[in-house]
Amino acid sequence: MNGAQALIRTLTGCGVDVCFSNPGTSEMHFVAALDAVPQLRGVLCLHEGTATGAADGYGRMTGRPAAALLHLGPGLANGLANLHNARRARTPLLAVVGDHATYHKQFDAPLESDIDALASSVSVWVQRPAGSAGVAAAAAQAVAAAMAPPGGVATLILPADVSWSQGAQPVPALAVPAPRPVPGEAVSSAAAVLRSGEPCVVLLGGDGTRRPGLEAASRIALATGARVIGETFPSRLERGAGLPGLERLAYLAEFAIAQLGDVRHLILAGASAPVSFFAHPGKPSSLVPDGCQVHVLAGPADDAPGALTALADLAAPDAKPVPQQPWRPALPDGDLTGESAAAVIGALLPEDAIVSDEANTSGLWLPGATAGTPPHDWLTLTGGAIGQGLPLATGAALASPGRRVLALEADGSAMYTISALWTHAREGLDITTIIFSNRAYAILGMELDRAGATAAGEAARSLLDLSRPSLNFAALAEGMGVPASRASTAAEFAGQLRRALAEPGPHLIEALVPPLG
Amino acid sequence: MNGAQALIRTLTGCGVDVCFSNPGTSEMHFVAALDAVPQLRGVLCLHEGTATGAADGYGRMTGRPAAALLHLGPGLANGLANLHNARRARTPLLAVVGDHATYHKQFDAPLESDIDALASSVSVWVQRPAGSAGVAAAAAQAVAAAMAPPGGVATLILPADVSWSQGAQPVPALAVPAPRPVPGEAVSSAAAVLRSGEPCVVLLGGDGTRRPGLEAASRIALATGARVIGETFPSRLERGAGLPGLERLAYLAEFAIAQLGDVRHLILAGASAPVSFFAHPGKPSSLVPDGCQVHVLAGPADDAPGALTALADLAAPDAKPVPQQPWRPALPDGDLTGESAAAVIGALLPEDAIVSDEANTSGLWLPGATAGTPPHDWLTLTGGAIGQGLPLATGAALASPGRRVLALEADGSAMYTISALWTHAREGLDITTIIFSNRAYAILGMELDRAGATAAGEAARSLLDLSRPSLNFAALAEGMGVPASRASTAAEFAGQLRRALAEPGPHLIEALVPPLG
Repeated sequence: MNGAQALIRTLTGCGVDVCFSNPGTSEMHFVAALDAVPQLRGVLCLHEGTATGAADGYGRMTGRPAAALLHLGPGLANGLANLHNARRARTPLLAVVGDHATYHKQFDAPLESDIDALASSVSVWVQRPAGSAGVAAAAAQAVAAAMAPPGGVATLILPADVSWSQGAQPVPALAVPAPRPVPGEAVSSAAAVLRSGEPCVVLLGGDGTRRPGLEAASRIALATGARVIGETFPSRLERGAGLPGLERLAYLAEFAIAQLGDVRHLILAGASAPVSFFAHPGKPSSLVPDGCQVHVLAGPADDAPGALTALADLAAPDAKPVPQQPWRPALPDGDLTGESAAAVIGALLPEDAIVSDEANTSGLWLPGATAGTPPHDWLTLTGGAIGQGLPLATGAALASPGRRVLALEADGSAMYTISALWTHAREGLDITTIIFSNRAYAILGMELDRAGATAAGEAARSLLDLSRPSLNFAALAEGMGVPASRASTAAEFAGQLRRALAEPGPHLIEALVPPLG
Repeated sequence: MNGAQALIRTLTGCGVDVCFSNPGTSEMHFVAALDAVPQLRGVLCLHEGTATGAADGYGRMTGRPAAALLHLGPGLANGLANLHNARRARTPLLAVVGDHATYHKQFDAPLESDIDALASSVSVWVQRPAGSAGVAAAAAQAVAAAMAPPGGVATLILPADVSWSQGAQPVPALAVPAPRPVPGEAVSSAAAVLRSGEPCVVLLGGDGTRRPGLEAASRIALATGARVIGETFPSRLERGAGLPGLERLAYLAEFAIAQLGDVRHLILAGASAPVSFFAHPGKPSSLVPDGCQVHVLAGPADDAPGALTALADLAAPDAKPVPQQPWRPALPDGDLTGESAAAVIGALLPEDAIVSDEANTSGLWLPGATAGTPPHDWLTLTGGAIGQGLPLATGAALASPGRRVLALEADGSAMYTISALWTHAREGLDITTIIFSNRAYAILGMELDRAGATAAGEAARSLLDLSRPSLNFAALAEGMGVPASRASTAAEFAGQLRRALAEPGPHLIEALVPPLG
C-alpha cells in the first residue's frame, strides 16, 4: 500500500479516529486514502484555526489525539494560534502537515516555506519521514509523543511523495507511559508544610482540576485549613453540584495578588508558579508573594490527582470532600447584561454540558452563576490566543455525542474563527453559541487604561471599537447554515436559550449586552 | 518621549502612513501613541490575516511599506500566510509585532512563544530593540530593509517595555538603494541569444510586468520574434487597452510545458526559472524544457525594466511596442457561469480599476474577457496561500483613493479572511467583491483526479465539498455591514455589478456559478 494508506491505518490502530481537515493539493493522496479506512472520520473545516482548535477540544475531552490535516507551511501557520493554545493546555494532538515531494523542495516553488521552524514553535515532537517505508513508524511515534505525559502537540510533516509511494505497511501502536507517580518524600514534605500552621494555598492545574484531584484537595482544605485555588485558565475543569467548587486565580495581576494575600506556602499540584499574564509598568511579573515558598507536589508530567490523593490520605485521612450544593439562579427580568445573561445560563445549563468559555470581559459573572448547576466541564482559553472558543466547541462536541456544548464567545474573539459555525452546521453538532456582543474589544479598553494611557483619544479608542459598523452575528450564522436569533432583554435571551437547548443541532444567540464598566 | 512615540514618528518620517492593526495588551502604548501622530492612520482589522494581506496590497500599489501591527507570536502566526504571499510578491512591508516586556519573557507567561522563529520564516530582516533608546534606529533600518530591492517583509519585534519606556527620540529615514543596474555584458549577451535564430522566450516577473517593462518586451518581440510570457502569479500586472498584452505562464505544469513548447532560450527578466507549483507523480518539477538554456537578464533585485529597455534599444532599436486594442465583450445573456461572469466583468470593468484576483478555477476566462478593457492593475496570489484576495483589496483601496477595486474571490478562499469585509465597510472602501460561489474547493477536485486518485469515494469527495450547508455570502456580507446581492443569471449579475460600481463604498455580489467541468 502507499504511505498515506499505511499512515491512516496506523493512526486508527493508535486510537486516532477523527481528522479535522483543511487539505490542499499536497494532501490529496491522504484524502483519497480516507475512503479505504472508514475508522478515520474526516471533518472538513473552512480554516485551519478551526481544525487545530477542534483537535484541541477533542483531545481535552477524550485524552486521545485527534489529527489536524494542514496544507504546507501557510496551512500550518493558519492553525498555529490554536496549536499554541493546545500546547498550553498540554492537549494530546497530532498535526499532519503535508509538504512538497522530497525532490521538489529544492525548486523553491511558491508554497515552499520553513515548516519545521513553525512546527517546532508549538510541538513536543516534529519529524518528517524520508520515505514511505518509514511513515507508519513515524506516525506511531507521533501519537505516543502526543500522549506521553503531560501531553502535547506532535507534528508529522508528510511529503507528498511519501504519501503516494508504495511499499508502506502499518505498524501497531506504541506503549504510552502513565503520568509519573510522585515520590513519597514529596508527599510527606507537602504534608509537613500543611502542618506548619502558616497560610498555605494548594494550586491545582493540569489533571488536578478534575474530580479526583478536586476531591482530594477539598479533603486537604477541610482538614488543614489550606486554601485551594485553581490555575487561571484550566484546560478542563470539572465543576457543578456534587463536585467540590474551585476558586480560580484571577486574570488581572492586582486581583490575583490580593487573592493570594499573605500566603506563606504555595503547593503546586499540576500547576506552574503563577505569573502575570502581561507585564505592566512597575508591577511584578511573578505573582508569588514576597516571602512565600513554592513547593512542587506534582509537576506537569506527574500524576497530580494521585499525589493529591496520597497527600489527602496523609494529611486529612478522615476528611470527606465538601461538595458544591445544587443551586441555580432565578431567571432574571429586565435588561440583558453580562450579569443577567450569566444568570440565564446558570438557570438553564443542562446536566453534563460542556462549556467552551471565551467570553472574556462579559464572562465575569459566569463562574458564580453556574457554580451550583448540574455537573459539567468548563474549557478555557489556555494560551491566550483568541479565536479558540468556536473551534474548541466543535471538537468537544464531536468527542462527546449526547452532551450539550455551549460556546460562550466575546464578539471580537468570535470573529477570528467564525467559519467554525459552518462545521457546526455541516456535522449537525449540538452546540449553542452565545455571542456576548458588546461592540468592543472591551478587554483592551481596560488594558489601555491599565497601561497608563489614560489620555487616549479618538485614534487609539477607534482601534478597540467594533461598533462601526455593528456586526450582526445572527446574519453571519445564518449565512453558514446555523439557525440564529438576537436577544436584547433577559427574557428574550432565556426564551431563545431554552429553545436552542431543546432542539438538536447548532444554534447561535447574539446577546446584545453593554460593555463592561 | 517613550519608545512607541519615537517609533511612530520615525515611521511617518520614513513614509509609512498606514498601520493595519489587530492589537492586544502588549501593543497598548503603541496604540495610545497614535493619538499624537495623526500622520499614521490606524486601520482596524478583525483578524491578522487581513492586516498583513492589506499591508501587502498597500505596498504593491505604492511601493512603500504599510505597517501591520500584530499581537505577540499568535498574532504573527495568524498573519503569516499573507506575509508568505507578500514575501513571494517581494512587497515592502513592515510587521510590528508586540512582545512581552523584556524582563517578563523569562516567566513563560501563557502568550510567550518563539516570535523570532516565526518572523524569520517570512522576513528579510528581523530585529528586537533591547531598549527604548534603540527603537527609532531599528525602525528606520526596518523600513530601509523592507524597501531595499527587491523588497520584502521586515519584522520589528517590539517588547512592551521598549514601547513604554522614556528616553527615545525619532531618527530620520535611511537612504534606500535603487534596483541594481544590469551590466552591459548581460544585455549584449541576451541580444546575442535573441539573434541566434533559435526559439526564445522572455519571461517577465517582478517590476517587469509594468508598463516600461511590457513596452520594452513588446518591442523585443516585434523585432526578434521572441515570445514574451509573464510569470504565473505576478505581484502587479499592468494591462488593458493601450498596454502590450501579456500571456501568463499556465498554472498547471502540463499546460505550461505545452506553452513553452520547443523554446531553446529562456531569458529571465525579474522572474525566476519556472517550476511546477506542486509535484505530481512522474512529472518534472522544473518547467524548463530539456535542452533549453536559461539566461538571467535581470534577477529579482536588478532593474528589470531598465534592462529590458536597454535590450530593446540594442536588439529592436526601431520597433515600437504593440498596444492591446480596446475591446470589451458584449454583455451576455443566459446562465451565469464562470465564462459569462467573466464577460460581464469585461464589459463593465471601470477605467483604472485594481483587480485583486483570487478567483481560482472560476477565473479561467477572466484574462481573455478583460484583455482589452481600459487600463487597470491585476494583483495575483503570489504565494499560493489562499485567503489573500479580500485583504489585498483592502490595502489596494486604501492606497489608491479614487480608484475602483474589484475583489474576485473563489468561495473557499474567501472564507479564510472573510472578516476583511468588515474593514471594507468601516473604511467605506470602494471595493466590489464578487464571490464565485460554486460550492466546492473545485481546484482540489481537479487535483484529486490529477493525483491519480480517480477512484475517490464519498469520504474523500466530501472534504472538497462546500454544499452542505450552502454558504450564503450575501448574508455574511450584510452581517458585516457590506450591502450585498446574489445573482444566478448573467443579466442579474450585470445589473448588480453595474449598480455596485455606480455607488460609493463596498458591495458584495455572490455569483452563483456551476463548478468547472
